[in-house]
Amino acid sequence: MKSKTILLNSRPHGAPSKDNFKITETEVPALQPGEVLLKALYISVDPYMRGRMSDARSYAAPYEVGKPFMGGVVAEVVESRNGQLQKGAVVVGSLPWQQYTVHTGKGLHAVDPEVAPLSYHLGILGMPGQTAYFGLLYIGQPKEGETIVVSGAAGAVGTVVGQIAKLKGCRVVGIAGSDEKIDYLKNKLHFDEAINYKTTGDINRAVAQACPDGVDVYFDNVGGAISDAVLLSLNKFARIAVCGQIAFYNNTTPPTGLRVEPILLRNSALMKGFIVNDYASDFGTAARELASWLKEGKLQYQETIKEGFEHIPEAFLGLFTGENTGKLLVKVAEREA
Amino acid sequence: MKSKTILLNSRPHGAPSKDNFKITETEVPALQPGEVLLKALYISVDPYMRGRMSDARSYAAPYEVGKPFMGGVVAEVVESRNGQLQKGAVVVGSLPWQQYTVHTGKGLHAVDPEVAPLSYHLGILGMPGQTAYFGLLYIGQPKEGETIVVSGAAGAVGTVVGQIAKLKGCRVVGIAGSDEKIDYLKNKLHFDEAINYKTTGDINRAVAQACPDGVDVYFDNVGGAISDAVLLSLNKFARIAVCGQIAFYNNTTPPTGLRVEPILLRNSALMKGFIVNDYASDFGTAARELASWLKEGKLQYQETIKEGFEHIPEAFLGLFTGENTGKLLVKVAEREA
Repeated sequence: MKSKTILLNSRPHGAPSKDNFKITETEVPALQPGEVLLKALYISVDPYMRGRMSDARSYAAPYEVGKPFMGGVVAEVVESRNGQLQKGAVVVGSLPWQQYTVHTGKGLHAVDPEVAPLSYHLGILGMPGQTAYFGLLYIGQPKEGETIVVSGAAGAVGTVVGQIAKLKGCRVVGIAGSDEKIDYLKNKLHFDEAINYKTTGDINRAVAQACPDGVDVYFDNVGGAISDAVLLSLNKFARIAVCGQIAFYNNTTPPTGLRVEPILLRNSALMKGFIVNDYASDFGTAARELASWLKEGKLQYQETIKEGFEHIPEAFLGLFTGENTGKLLVKVAEREA
Repeated sequence: MKSKTILLNSRPHGAPSKDNFKITETEVPALQPGEVLLKALYISVDPYMRGRMSDARSYAAPYEVGKPFMGGVVAEVVESRNGQLQKGAVVVGSLPWQQYTVHTGKGLHAVDPEVAPLSYHLGILGMPGQTAYFGLLYIGQPKEGETIVVSGAAGAVGTVVGQIAKLKGCRVVGIAGSDEKIDYLKNKLHFDEAINYKTTGDINRAVAQACPDGVDVYFDNVGGAISDAVLLSLNKFARIAVCGQIAFYNNTTPPTGLRVEPILLRNSALMKGFIVNDYASDFGTAARELASWLKEGKLQYQETIKEGFEHIPEAFLGLFTGENTGKLLVKVAEREA
């Protein structure tokens, strides 16, 4: 049996392009004792992967040129010589971007297909949902009545941040880049305010107007001028969770801009960077609480699902042009069992 | 009886100068019941006062043009119609820069002249010492074996930061601006390394070399290029206490420079601004622990004491040219009792 794989063909200099990806096809080896054959069902594409395409020091190891991309994948066990993982089981884990993968099973988590659609384990119940959970609750520590601003608000993380903040009784202001997203945030997710940074004339003034009592918590998915605008409205003792800096992922030199230290000093404010793995010991707690909010209808969730293994590169590239609302992923096969 | 006062004559635009100060002389009013007459003995000059000379929003209320400067003062009660404060008592508090002040006693703290020289209550036992204590221990949370970098290392705060970090078993690297200060830090205060940022060619490389295991805690008194160099050597989960940004106090526009958010994100690092008053509820604890370290000879302390009320403005201006080592203050009178 043959399987397609997507490799890093070359490292991008600046914005990534299709040339950085290469699709190959190889024969799938026979299973050894203890191994399983995984068939990829859903593959997640995420902004942080841009960092791994470079060889600069970052929080995640770089991809190697000529080797497969890796990331969150939901897969089905279609053959098993492993007593722990039966044929028909569905798992989630960090796996290569390929159709069929031979695996020992280590580091994979079994998924209960009854809890939620399988794709949700790459989104609200998986890395993006947990990222929102830890950044907002552990760093932001929102209190009832406080004002929370989230940038990248219509994305996989931002939509969960805003909804959890609403559950906690906060005023929630989202920043996103299209009228469609603004409409979604205000009318579907019940954000108190949402700002289209592309069409608002003066982003500093827009943030100040949307936050008449100032900003107590800022969940930063983007960095750059949007963040600067929020920092100018900070309240004393504000908390800033730095989750993403998509504004700079394609930079080739260290970015410069507004100095934040004087602002943090003036407001006795806290800023903390994080990745979801920092809180690995609490993954179980977060997953249970997110699943229960979802079940009770307290969290809305939206996905954009592209179809077809060959379309993974273009789906990934779409992340940087702001096309998608909610979690973006690619469905590559139907479940067999 | 007449008393001299130093007023804010005009707000500085950029670096402050002598023109911004004015000395006047007025008659001291008679005491009303409940009041005391205070004679200033020592007056503290501190970098943060530059911020109060501007009318921009900051953490401390601006001084008003035509009104006295205020700050830390050790004073003697030379007349009393207040049952709580006897003649001869020594107090410390936030007081105007004047020779004699009529006061209700509210907000003043009595000082035990036996514990330490009176001037120490403006330094190691007062605001600068407590600033070092809270910033290092509450934000920095240094652990044995970690590397701590402090900028403005030879100043009133920096010298205490480095010494407490040594007490906690850390490797301590100081950054300061003269060979005399470097000598003092290494040979008197036993810092592991000290960098003269004015003569080291490449500050980024100098910090990297002085911190072969990276930087776990950075106590930032200065901001700017010195801080950027430290940020480039941060370790995962590093903590940065932002205490001062003297590099920017004379700026007239919001400063720009290296973006810290991507660095905090890459290292899951925490950065927090603070002022000593944020920890007011723990002042007693800090004062007791600092006094006991001092008594046991575990903390060295150095002051630069200028003499004469009229010389306060020039002493203050000297803060921005890096002349002083240790705490800078002005002795304005002898104690009577």
